[in-house]
Amino acid sequence: MGTTPPLSPLAPAAFPALPQVAGVRFATTQAGVRYSGRDDVMLAALAPGTAIAGAFTRSATRSAAVLDCQQKIGQHGSAGAAFLVNSGNANAFTGKQGEASVKAITKAAAKALNLPETRVFTSSTGVIGEPLPHDRITGTLDKLAASLSPEAIEPAARAIMTTDTFPKGAGTTLTFDGQHVHIAGIAKGSGMIAPDMATMLVYIFTDAVIEQSVLQTMVSALNRTTFNCITVDSDTSTSDTLLVAATGASGIRVTEDSVGFMEGLRQVMLDLAHQVVRDGEGATKFVEISVTGASSDADAHTHAMAIANSPLVKTAIAGEDPNWGRIVMAVGKSGAPADRDTLSIWFGHILVARDGRVDPDYDESDAALYMKQQELTIHVDLGLGGGTAVVWTCDLTHGYIDINADYRS
Amino acid sequence: MGTTPPLSPLAPAAFPALPQVAGVRFATTQAGVRYSGRDDVMLAALAPGTAIAGAFTRSATRSAAVLDCQQKIGQHGSAGAAFLVNSGNANAFTGKQGEASVKAITKAAAKALNLPETRVFTSSTGVIGEPLPHDRITGTLDKLAASLSPEAIEPAARAIMTTDTFPKGAGTTLTFDGQHVHIAGIAKGSGMIAPDMATMLVYIFTDAVIEQSVLQTMVSALNRTTFNCITVDSDTSTSDTLLVAATGASGIRVTEDSVGFMEGLRQVMLDLAHQVVRDGEGATKFVEISVTGASSDADAHTHAMAIANSPLVKTAIAGEDPNWGRIVMAVGKSGAPADRDTLSIWFGHILVARDGRVDPDYDESDAALYMKQQELTIHVDLGLGGGTAVVWTCDLTHGYIDINADYRS
Repeated sequence: MGTTPPLSPLAPAAFPALPQVAGVRFATTQAGVRYSGRDDVMLAALAPGTAIAGAFTRSATRSAAVLDCQQKIGQHGSAGAAFLVNSGNANAFTGKQGEASVKAITKAAAKALNLPETRVFTSSTGVIGEPLPHDRITGTLDKLAASLSPEAIEPAARAIMTTDTFPKGAGTTLTFDGQHVHIAGIAKGSGMIAPDMATMLVYIFTDAVIEQSVLQTMVSALNRTTFNCITVDSDTSTSDTLLVAATGASGIRVTEDSVGFMEGLRQVMLDLAHQVVRDGEGATKFVEISVTGASSDADAHTHAMAIANSPLVKTAIAGEDPNWGRIVMAVGKSGAPADRDTLSIWFGHILVARDGRVDPDYDESDAALYMKQQELTIHVDLGLGGGTAVVWTCDLTHGYIDINADYRS
Repeated sequence: MGTTPPLSPLAPAAFPALPQVAGVRFATTQAGVRYSGRDDVMLAALAPGTAIAGAFTRSATRSAAVLDCQQKIGQHGSAGAAFLVNSGNANAFTGKQGEASVKAITKAAAKALNLPETRVFTSSTGVIGEPLPHDRITGTLDKLAASLSPEAIEPAARAIMTTDTFPKGAGTTLTFDGQHVHIAGIAKGSGMIAPDMATMLVYIFTDAVIEQSVLQTMVSALNRTTFNCITVDSDTSTSDTLLVAATGASGIRVTEDSVGFMEGLRQVMLDLAHQVVRDGEGATKFVEISVTGASSDADAHTHAMAIANSPLVKTAIAGEDPNWGRIVMAVGKSGAPADRDTLSIWFGHILVARDGRVDPDYDESDAALYMKQQELTIHVDLGLGGGTAVVWTCDLTHGYIDINADYRS
């Protein structure tokens, strides 16, 4: 890994003040897995009865930790639970040795917290293909268990970073009949994703009381319009993991009909998803791609992701060039239905093209001025039906090449 | 468009000596469509009875010229025929006006050469969304028709260039029972493809006698393993066009069973396809991706293209980093079946990983040395079945960002 990239120009001013979620305690420490001089292990201890839902990478080469989490998710016991995460080494493509490492750190965490091993969920993020020196992690578990604190969520967000340039957190406090439910989450990720040094990991906590099956249904549904609608470079990690824990410690029960809770959770997930894009490798522009008028929502998503992933669209944005011809190209190649002669395109509120040709009133100098903004919206209407989608991406810059063409040593 | 990029380091030493194809004559001139001081219109006049086959972009937003060619292809009349190509303006996304431009230049070429309009095939390449000033082209047709020469294939290759850094030509002479059949072709393209200033256009000529339906079958089959197996940036043009003309002027008849002709045509198509990759925007490495052991050939192609299009793989190659973890990632995300534990990877002849983990004898310093070469082979074996594929790509460098983030003015 080369020198640390500078703070993303799209970074928030500071880590947000997050609500404390009853039933969750954090601890971090320096295990020295790969990095020195910084925390690289994070433990989150969860109260007895916590329901846990999740979503994981669909990669066919997913890591041993992901496979282990997927086996355990869906069981809702009365025991406590834990998330244990290390940065610096992804323990991916490490064969049987990788599975043994997951087993070893799971066992150590279960012992230190007096939990069944089936309630310990681990993640590893960092370089792939190198054996995980898991003894360095298991050796820290007693110390971690002794230093758990309900206030240490920001150090937790920092301990899971790899090439991230800022720690990512989001939270909200909801009120039901005068009583409070809290949601707080952390994330890491700066590509979508570099298996070398960056994968997306997200941990969200709430003190609501929720059945595991209800929580899983909500998480799966919300994942489709949040984390599955962002892209930095079209590459998919071997380790992507989203875990949501509901401790129940607030005593407030949430059901599948709770629109308020679902909306609160959606906002936290979307906020974290946007922060991952804002920390996209080399990013200087945050771009919302909105597609309407498609034959279906799925078609709209296909068009939106084709635009959001196109290297030519992303380099044009980096160059502040209102190059709408490349939008037409991306729609044309996406594979979803489109009709050149009903297509309209806007940059922000500027109508660029309609009915298959440039708008007669379009003034490129207006669009060139708009493209200088740091936050951009590109809107495409297909003119075919009622399908819509919104996705988020960043530009493709020299910074991306600098970060990813560096030799790993 | 900014300054002209320097000659690709992967360019051939010189334009090749190509055989003359009986029944084909070329002319070029300066129409001033967009460029000044260089030829930007190319006319190829084809003998009576010429059979014409083709393959075109599948983009849903393809250009008016492509739609017109697709309507005309498949008819095999006794009349002569012509290809008319301009660079500098793609006449794409120009609505009804674009269709009128195709009609106007087609009519002028037909008149100048005394051909039916159905036998004139046009292409336009360059900036999109701007009306084509077709009067500048129609005004040159009489002059072009008067200056046709069987020897002017290199000027023809130069006239169709946009962001290309070198003209592309390939050819071969085949012998059947002591008699000669010639094949010669030209191409342009430096992205796969930038609709702003670069699209892939290919014109191949032979003096063999071939039925149009036989020629079309051959071209469609060979296109799958040549032009459809290259990628520079995963973006697909609105204008990609491949036209193959068989004039019949050699008197040598070729049937669907002619393995020798099919192989000659394949070599010319592959040579031109490789030259397009060698002129890939910003390219410094030419990379062959070979996939074996997949469940099917289609799956192998999916894996190979996922590797060849991955920004993380391509930036690692630019950085001369034998980052095999990114190969694992690309295979994992491709969507085609893969089993982590049967996967093997080679850089050149260096075995990097097998059975789901790094090979015990792998020495990264050997691989790092290999990656310094200008021509690289990456081989992945899935260990699942007999499916194979080979595709070609280039690296992703600062040069790509320079070329594509430049403002168009």
